[in-house]
Amino acid sequence: MTSTERYLVISADCHAGLPSEQYRDWLDPEFRPAFDDHLAERRAMISQLMAGDEDFARRWEEENAEGLQGAWDAGRRDKELDQDGVAGEVIFPDADSVTGGASPPFGAGLGGALDIPPDRAFAGAHAHNRWLAELCRDSPERRAGIALVPVTHDPVRAEAEVRWAHDQGLRGGILIPGMWGTYPPYHDRVYDPVWAACQELGMPVNAHSGPAPRHEYGEHLGIYASEAVWWASRPLWFLLWSGVFERFPELRFVVTESAAYWAPDLLWKMDTYFAGSHTTKKMVKRLRGSLRMLPSEYFDRNCFIGASTMTRVEVDRRYDIGVGNILWGNDYPHPEGTWPHTVEKLRDTFGDVPVEETRQMLGTSAAAVYGFDPGALAPLVARIGPTPADLGQTPEAAAGWERARTGARAWLAGLPPVDYDPAGS
Amino acid sequence: MTSTERYLVISADCHAGLPSEQYRDWLDPEFRPAFDDHLAERRAMISQLMAGDEDFARRWEEENAEGLQGAWDAGRRDKELDQDGVAGEVIFPDADSVTGGASPPFGAGLGGALDIPPDRAFAGAHAHNRWLAELCRDSPERRAGIALVPVTHDPVRAEAEVRWAHDQGLRGGILIPGMWGTYPPYHDRVYDPVWAACQELGMPVNAHSGPAPRHEYGEHLGIYASEAVWWASRPLWFLLWSGVFERFPELRFVVTESAAYWAPDLLWKMDTYFAGSHTTKKMVKRLRGSLRMLPSEYFDRNCFIGASTMTRVEVDRRYDIGVGNILWGNDYPHPEGTWPHTVEKLRDTFGDVPVEETRQMLGTSAAAVYGFDPGALAPLVARIGPTPADLGQTPEAAAGWERARTGARAWLAGLPPVDYDPAGS
Repeated sequence: MTSTERYLVISADCHAGLPSEQYRDWLDPEFRPAFDDHLAERRAMISQLMAGDEDFARRWEEENAEGLQGAWDAGRRDKELDQDGVAGEVIFPDADSVTGGASPPFGAGLGGALDIPPDRAFAGAHAHNRWLAELCRDSPERRAGIALVPVTHDPVRAEAEVRWAHDQGLRGGILIPGMWGTYPPYHDRVYDPVWAACQELGMPVNAHSGPAPRHEYGEHLGIYASEAVWWASRPLWFLLWSGVFERFPELRFVVTESAAYWAPDLLWKMDTYFAGSHTTKKMVKRLRGSLRMLPSEYFDRNCFIGASTMTRVEVDRRYDIGVGNILWGNDYPHPEGTWPHTVEKLRDTFGDVPVEETRQMLGTSAAAVYGFDPGALAPLVARIGPTPADLGQTPEAAAGWERARTGARAWLAGLPPVDYDPAGS
Repeated sequence: MTSTERYLVISADCHAGLPSEQYRDWLDPEFRPAFDDHLAERRAMISQLMAGDEDFARRWEEENAEGLQGAWDAGRRDKELDQDGVAGEVIFPDADSVTGGASPPFGAGLGGALDIPPDRAFAGAHAHNRWLAELCRDSPERRAGIALVPVTHDPVRAEAEVRWAHDQGLRGGILIPGMWGTYPPYHDRVYDPVWAACQELGMPVNAHSGPAPRHEYGEHLGIYASEAVWWASRPLWFLLWSGVFERFPELRFVVTESAAYWAPDLLWKMDTYFAGSHTTKKMVKRLRGSLRMLPSEYFDRNCFIGASTMTRVEVDRRYDIGVGNILWGNDYPHPEGTWPHTVEKLRDTFGDVPVEETRQMLGTSAAAVYGFDPGALAPLVARIGPTPADLGQTPEAAAGWERARTGARAWLAGLPPVDYDPAGS
């Protein structure tokens, strides 16, 4: 692999979905009357939510009328990905983040349908999963679809849906609701059969931004913006501290479109708590639980961050986060993503990053996590993949990172020696 | 002021409280039967919580038997503060963070008594406030007591308690529960009369770590440790985005013992959202609400961080946080604080920090926020205050910060020009 070779670019954060009303055909017939009611309510709610932003929505939809049809049209979708230089994609639900017009039935997408009875939540999820499996069959080497699985509502049924999704080729794994409402939090052993099935089948467990306690925010969107990434990433430390990655050492957990700037501080604090700092010495024995490694070691092995449209701050902190834990994404077809100007944006973000690290973040790590076959994608990459030169990368530009690299995770040097006897050992 | 002058050290984070059962005498008589029941329940709960940590608790209490009595004994308290070099103190409740044995009735302290009916929450708070006012009268120049005010339970009654506390000389302001449970979140206008009274009387509004949704954590203390500071600091962005600091420009809000390392990222993100970045362009019009300045400008004017036993990370980030917004504290008499080794710990933390900046963080900023009179404390400082030499500070050691200082808040240079017409203007 040379520095002139084209990049295998995999977007670890894409979205696909039918226009909401068209999900009706993919829904088990007994749920269609309830679906019609839900759709009407949803339209009214969205129209209220949009008040004040109609200008942006109209402009966005006018300027991207054709490209937005790629939300559900495979041919159009491939054209858009091609021109963005994206060979592979990981597919989340809720394709329309502007007017919410392409969302799975009963709010079973990113929102997690927490206020919906289990039967409807699973029915809505299954309708999307059926459709998504079709979409992915169109070009399986290119698409890793993520199945919606309302694990919170019924872990037993969830395990069955995991196995069905795997049979259908949805190798993106499963999306779990970022919040759990009144259901058991993610430390609960009730979810172990789901994690076990995901480990067994190599299905990643994904969380994605979106869920948040919106009823607490009033009209103040700034509050939502300020804490949205926290709510999405919260499952990470619930899984980690409760020993899920100890019990399921091959499980992969990904948190997506929730930025990554927060990861170094989180890892620093978790490692420090675990090792027994001054501030936690009064509780360290109970705090360690069944863990046998530093939290950052579990993170490195089991966790990934779908950092989507990364900022320079994430690039600057990549050695603390872990270069191999970062998965880039273009967030197609959302307006907050890099589509349809991905190569230009990649130049701004990665222009001075070493080529081998860029390869990891733009594609090879995502290929490993989501089971893409680089060989199968090679002809496509040869046609559409951007080159390091397209990103403005030169060895000279990338020469300034030595200090950041060697100084990474500086907190590890200051930890007290970890001497413990894990419970259950 | 020269670099050899002794430091005015004010601990912006101390705790005081009676042994829990002794609060009985300070409680209105009609609440005493309920108090006896509550105390019994609480003892059982704490004994369960402590399982596994008895060794640490016994050792801590044996080694500090005399000093811990300063939790309620003014004479002993002064001896401990004197030997720690601390001239002034801001006093929060819940003096015993190991076995919970010195907490206000009905959980009215740091926990906020969210599950307690309003009458009892106010009765418990008032009992503590009465006792605390007595403690502070003992040496008013030295002690800024913080009144407990369950604003969530009844804002009208809360306003009356604010005024009563001010009359009693409790100039530390009020403690608000960090969480609101099923009560209105802090963006709600229902709290405006409380904020108005606090502004009028110069009473700071304080939040302090402790509140967290513990019922979600199971036995996993690592989860609590990983998110405790987030829950405590959450009111900050609720107040800010909902325009509280626009409507009450002289209100001071302090978040204490919740670290400060998170502040630069929070300010960066909030400023970026407000200015209208790529990721929030679809919602920026609604997001700005009634704000007329950047979030970091409100922060600088209205917000302070009681960073307590600061780490080197907070020292390294102090220019991004704002040197003038940081208030140090020794957390006396909690084992996670610097007491009884404060000067030694200060040397580790501030040894290479310029003296004038150290003065701000160790005392003069807290004096301004909480209304201490440095003149009245001068004789005490002359006797007990540490000198820059005691902290190992020299001009040579402090010479390495120029780049951090001039590079502070780098995000401001990259913001798009802010051109907006605030609602309500």
